[in-house]
Amino acid sequence: MAAPILVFGHKNPDNDAISAAVGYAYLKNELAKRAGSDAVYEACRLGGLPPETEWILGENGIEAPRLIESLSEGQQVILVDHNETLQSADGLDAAEIVEIVDHHRLGGLVTAQPLRFNAKPVGSTAAIVAREFEIEGVELPRGIAALLLGAMLTDTVIMKSPTTTDFDRDIIARTAAAVGVDPVEYGMSIFKCRSNPAELPVDKLVNADAKEFELSNGNKVYIGQYETVDLQAVLGREAEIREAIKGLVADKGYQFVLFFATDILAEGSQFICEGDTDFVNRAFDIDCTGKSVWMPGVLSRKKQVAAPILAL
Amino acid sequence: MAAPILVFGHKNPDNDAISAAVGYAYLKNELAKRAGSDAVYEACRLGGLPPETEWILGENGIEAPRLIESLSEGQQVILVDHNETLQSADGLDAAEIVEIVDHHRLGGLVTAQPLRFNAKPVGSTAAIVAREFEIEGVELPRGIAALLLGAMLTDTVIMKSPTTTDFDRDIIARTAAAVGVDPVEYGMSIFKCRSNPAELPVDKLVNADAKEFELSNGNKVYIGQYETVDLQAVLGREAEIREAIKGLVADKGYQFVLFFATDILAEGSQFICEGDTDFVNRAFDIDCTGKSVWMPGVLSRKKQVAAPILAL
Repeated sequence: MAAPILVFGHKNPDNDAISAAVGYAYLKNELAKRAGSDAVYEACRLGGLPPETEWILGENGIEAPRLIESLSEGQQVILVDHNETLQSADGLDAAEIVEIVDHHRLGGLVTAQPLRFNAKPVGSTAAIVAREFEIEGVELPRGIAALLLGAMLTDTVIMKSPTTTDFDRDIIARTAAAVGVDPVEYGMSIFKCRSNPAELPVDKLVNADAKEFELSNGNKVYIGQYETVDLQAVLGREAEIREAIKGLVADKGYQFVLFFATDILAEGSQFICEGDTDFVNRAFDIDCTGKSVWMPGVLSRKKQVAAPILAL
Repeated sequence: MAAPILVFGHKNPDNDAISAAVGYAYLKNELAKRAGSDAVYEACRLGGLPPETEWILGENGIEAPRLIESLSEGQQVILVDHNETLQSADGLDAAEIVEIVDHHRLGGLVTAQPLRFNAKPVGSTAAIVAREFEIEGVELPRGIAALLLGAMLTDTVIMKSPTTTDFDRDIIARTAAAVGVDPVEYGMSIFKCRSNPAELPVDKLVNADAKEFELSNGNKVYIGQYETVDLQAVLGREAEIREAIKGLVADKGYQFVLFFATDILAEGSQFICEGDTDFVNRAFDIDCTGKSVWMPGVLSRKKQVAAPILAL
């Protein structure tokens, strides 16, 4: 049997990173069978399972993808939900990227060989994966459909995020119909099954969905988001959160760490920033130095937070 | 009316770069109409028309795309058949790339925003464009079909290049059936309508299908290919070709210029290299310093020439 081609999302995986990997590995295995190829695809993950992913996997009897730390030389991989080395597995430079499925900006990757790159500016990678099942005419099993639907709903904050497009709404409607659920109700049940933010250890809160980025000046920063239906429980821990992200600035040499808690009901986010806050203040014309700032309407890290900072 | 979004292929356009731009702009305009959008897409080109493209455009009554030199700030563009700044229009850094359709390696592009990136490791960009007509359910007019078919056949050297995949063979068969031609005969008629290489001005020969690349050491090189059914007519001009590419090395500061003439009947290429030939000698374990070398089986610049050099 051929060595498996590993399919994985970014470090600090969110629901989309895990679900898209599981869904895409399933699709690629079906396509390989159809083509009579002996290629095997294995879904993996680069970090812990988010609580909502654990719940959906369990509900649908799907095994959690294998946790990997680094890649061996020449390992063939498919990246989902990311295309930047900084956010990927250690050893990526010596691996062979055979394919990318993503919905983020281009991060400067260079390859020696052509590859399949399927990116769309839509709300989730799961939506692109679900669409590929339709294009290829591969039947979407109910469990995989539920998993992808869950990721489409968390990544678009139940279609409230400005990253949500008609493409997302259409494929969410078709997938929800296939699963037999109402998408908004299903989305709320997923957000509610997240751990209580008052009880979560602070490092889990701060790192739950956080990514490294490189500023135009070459310095690295860390931007984390926590989406919740209970913002006050998060804000009650501001002092503790500030200590934790100050620690990250010191330990990792980040120019700044920006943590923001998104209230999916009130549709806005509270910014908490430590380190040199200059880029954040300039990008949003705010003063978040030493104090937290409420940002109405800000729901998307990619489109509304990272993009303005990285454009400076 | 909205300002047109420009759709163009790489500098020194080959048949695929022009045809894919014309075909994709047509498709995007049809999709915009269907969506009730007022977006307008205009095919452009960054250089002269190859003779075979001029012939196919004329045969099918399609207007040649507009020649552009550089982009104004904020101009929205779609790149086809390339994804590297070096190969693109001047001013790309200040333009907004909204989409990429390509079949080349990733060249390190960084964007601030997510975009649609549709790349596949197949023989031509035209094949990817033709497939998009099928996926979107847009009727392919006979003239556009003939144009895309011609590009699929020149870019795969009538399906002889090792870059040719089942994806290419399938879409070539379906498109040839739609046009009502035999693909091999149609391909030969296209290659034969190229100018006689004995009569072509030497700078046209050398620059006909040439691209800049950046080596791992940061130096730039220039690699050009001329596909022909009359290799001897090209090789009879070796001294003249050497003078021309020596001139390019001196004028542009390239580490080397590699020109190779591909005999599509004998299925191989003759390498002629000037400048510091070290990378070329090492990549292929040959000695092309001061003398030309026959490389049997080498038909693809991307897969068999650029890739081994850039991997050093």
